[in-house]
Amino acid sequence: MNMIDIITKKKFGGELSQEEIDAFVSAAAHNTAPDYQLAALLMAIRLNGMTPEETTRLTLAMTRSGDVADLSAIPGVKVDKHSTGGVGDTATLVVAPLVAACGVPVAKMSGRGLGHTGGTLDKLESIPGMRIDLEEERFIRQVQDIGIAVIGQTGSLAPADKTLYALRDVTATVDSLPLIASSIMSKKLASGADAIVLDVKTGSGAIMHTLEGSIELAQAMVQIGTLARKPVTAVVTGMEQPLGTHVGNALEVKDAIDVLAGRTKGALLDVSLLLGSHMLMLAGRAKTQAEAEALLREALESGRGLEKLRQMITAQGGDARVCDDVRLLPQPAVKKTVRVGRSGWVAGMDTTALGLAAQAMGAGRIRKTDVLDYSVGFVLPVRIGDEVRPEDELCTLFAKSEADAEAAEKAIRAAIRFSDAPVARPPLWYAVVTKDGIVRA
Amino acid sequence: MNMIDIITKKKFGGELSQEEIDAFVSAAAHNTAPDYQLAALLMAIRLNGMTPEETTRLTLAMTRSGDVADLSAIPGVKVDKHSTGGVGDTATLVVAPLVAACGVPVAKMSGRGLGHTGGTLDKLESIPGMRIDLEEERFIRQVQDIGIAVIGQTGSLAPADKTLYALRDVTATVDSLPLIASSIMSKKLASGADAIVLDVKTGSGAIMHTLEGSIELAQAMVQIGTLARKPVTAVVTGMEQPLGTHVGNALEVKDAIDVLAGRTKGALLDVSLLLGSHMLMLAGRAKTQAEAEALLREALESGRGLEKLRQMITAQGGDARVCDDVRLLPQPAVKKTVRVGRSGWVAGMDTTALGLAAQAMGAGRIRKTDVLDYSVGFVLPVRIGDEVRPEDELCTLFAKSEADAEAAEKAIRAAIRFSDAPVARPPLWYAVVTKDGIVRA
Repeated sequence: MNMIDIITKKKFGGELSQEEIDAFVSAAAHNTAPDYQLAALLMAIRLNGMTPEETTRLTLAMTRSGDVADLSAIPGVKVDKHSTGGVGDTATLVVAPLVAACGVPVAKMSGRGLGHTGGTLDKLESIPGMRIDLEEERFIRQVQDIGIAVIGQTGSLAPADKTLYALRDVTATVDSLPLIASSIMSKKLASGADAIVLDVKTGSGAIMHTLEGSIELAQAMVQIGTLARKPVTAVVTGMEQPLGTHVGNALEVKDAIDVLAGRTKGALLDVSLLLGSHMLMLAGRAKTQAEAEALLREALESGRGLEKLRQMITAQGGDARVCDDVRLLPQPAVKKTVRVGRSGWVAGMDTTALGLAAQAMGAGRIRKTDVLDYSVGFVLPVRIGDEVRPEDELCTLFAKSEADAEAAEKAIRAAIRFSDAPVARPPLWYAVVTKDGIVRA
Repeated sequence: MNMIDIITKKKFGGELSQEEIDAFVSAAAHNTAPDYQLAALLMAIRLNGMTPEETTRLTLAMTRSGDVADLSAIPGVKVDKHSTGGVGDTATLVVAPLVAACGVPVAKMSGRGLGHTGGTLDKLESIPGMRIDLEEERFIRQVQDIGIAVIGQTGSLAPADKTLYALRDVTATVDSLPLIASSIMSKKLASGADAIVLDVKTGSGAIMHTLEGSIELAQAMVQIGTLARKPVTAVVTGMEQPLGTHVGNALEVKDAIDVLAGRTKGALLDVSLLLGSHMLMLAGRAKTQAEAEALLREALESGRGLEKLRQMITAQGGDARVCDDVRLLPQPAVKKTVRVGRSGWVAGMDTTALGLAAQAMGAGRIRKTDVLDYSVGFVLPVRIGDEVRPEDELCTLFAKSEADAEAAEKAIRAAIRFSDAPVARPPLWYAVVTKDGIVRA
């Protein structure tokens, strides 16, 4: 099996066989093909696509390229949740405690921030003392004990994906449906869950900007799950604007705590309830969405959700007092509130630009080796469709320096469009995709 | 100028600006971008193409990436000749001496064999003592003295092309019109000729298999020449079968000597006269093709062409007695004549497979570091359209061993199709492309 022959076949739009996919994935996992050949193949896949069968073959080969976690020691149906990445998207920190509080075990491996999007691991590490590098044995014991653990990937899950992911990032081949779908699903299948709820973002801050592209991605991942005999529900939700009002690591932890404490309503809560209800249904804990949502609301209102987060933070070495006093989270040198400065309606946002503004402030990495500043970011209370007046708050900046705050203000102002006429609020979600088909909102 | 931005633009089918092309070429020339980024960009170019303007920008940037030879010390119009590569294509060794014998200086830098195609330098090195590594000063003096020199590229001509060429070979991006055109033309422009005749091959042994693809390539290269203010004539000739009857290094030198000595007629002579007449016209030595061909025929028949080859071999340290006794060329261990074994007509050939058969015998390199056996190859007297009988000679093998001869016989038999009905002979040439347009045969 010669890499040049495989590249040539894909260059001419051919469908790669099991044997060819296996050779490609093995070369990526064991570094036996030069990076330039993998890069040429990735670009050929980006431009010529893959059939659903090919994408599934690629996913399963990447899953098999490393260890597969064994969660069978944890009783019950383990449901994982994954977002394709967004800005101000801290749903995991809301939904995981709520679901666990409903008696469904959450044994979740999360990722770090990438590009303009945040990552759950970075957010968790903004909590003083919090550890995300538990060994598999301790991870499983924690879920057995308290029903919840959120950690980084252990050992060598999907090593082929690691190689290809790093290469895609530097060869402009991130935005390929089969490569995105196989990358996400290979890691989810390797992390050992019984069922998976996917939050597929769509809009200006999502990996897929168009609704049809997002639905296609959702369908591809559901199909892979089905072929791998894991039930998958994919919810396509809006990323025309940040999900929560807070963007930045400690700020998003605060946002999640505020939601779990009942102080904050809005899109972050609503999407969390939506994703959580699909998780409860896949776990067999509820039959209907209404029943599932009632269970989640009860966990929220009783304070059992916030208590589950407290337990998890304590179990992973963190300072759980942050759940009752968010001022214990890292604080920035400079806080500055910026006013809207005009009348009208919020018409739209370049959400990727907003994410990049937070990244530039130090909330995300530009190079792999960058050290984050957990305290920085911004709060953006305005939402698309809101009517605004000049003196209203546009955002509050949490910055390392006055200069950083000024640069962020400029970037945020440039990323938000206003209108002189009323603008409709975008829907929270657009479609739910399962193996049985699509339900549109 | 960021390589990822450049790759992204081409991935979406955009046209690269002068600045972007310069950044790409500089990165290739100075190895300042990783190979995997160059590979991803090459695949994006292969699949999304380039506009004529982009291709010209790329060519001129590659030309400027290194030295440009200065042939101004040689009086007269220096006309270069280049073939896109074929099997049994030793036209340079026929046409260069004939053109020089007509008083037009030939100062030519040639290449080595690549893949299934032969290279003039390898053929010249099969002549005992022959040197092809002359320094520029000696090269120019030789052309001043005897009107002809054929050597390898001196110094650092088009170093960006060297990097990209090597990378294309191992990333399945050889067959890209803009990359082929810019690679050939950047080297031709850097080698300092005043005008260029291109032999663009078409058919089963050519880099472009279809006639329209070959004509497009011819047009692209003529347009680059025009924009660089160098007159270019591109002749599209047939590569449905080997050009000469001899395939292999010493064998092709013998074939050229046989033609120059008047012993061999046929396609190699005819194509040489066609290319030579366009060279004489570009040099201003003849006004019409008929006039040019008459001059070339006179040089051939008078023996002045063969004498010019003798002079060149002597000037470059070779044993010119081979021109009078071809048995002084390297001889193989095994010679074996193979019969056709059936009646009918020769219907077609997989000429690439024939070239690969010669390569496998040791006439070409599979790895860069392979050492050639100059003596090996085969003579293939049959031509498409010939009527054959079982006892006719199909080919004579010149091999290192009986095993090699057997393998070659198998490959050659598999590469030649026969028919029970008469088959038309393919034309010698299909089109001539100049800045004034196309003339079809």
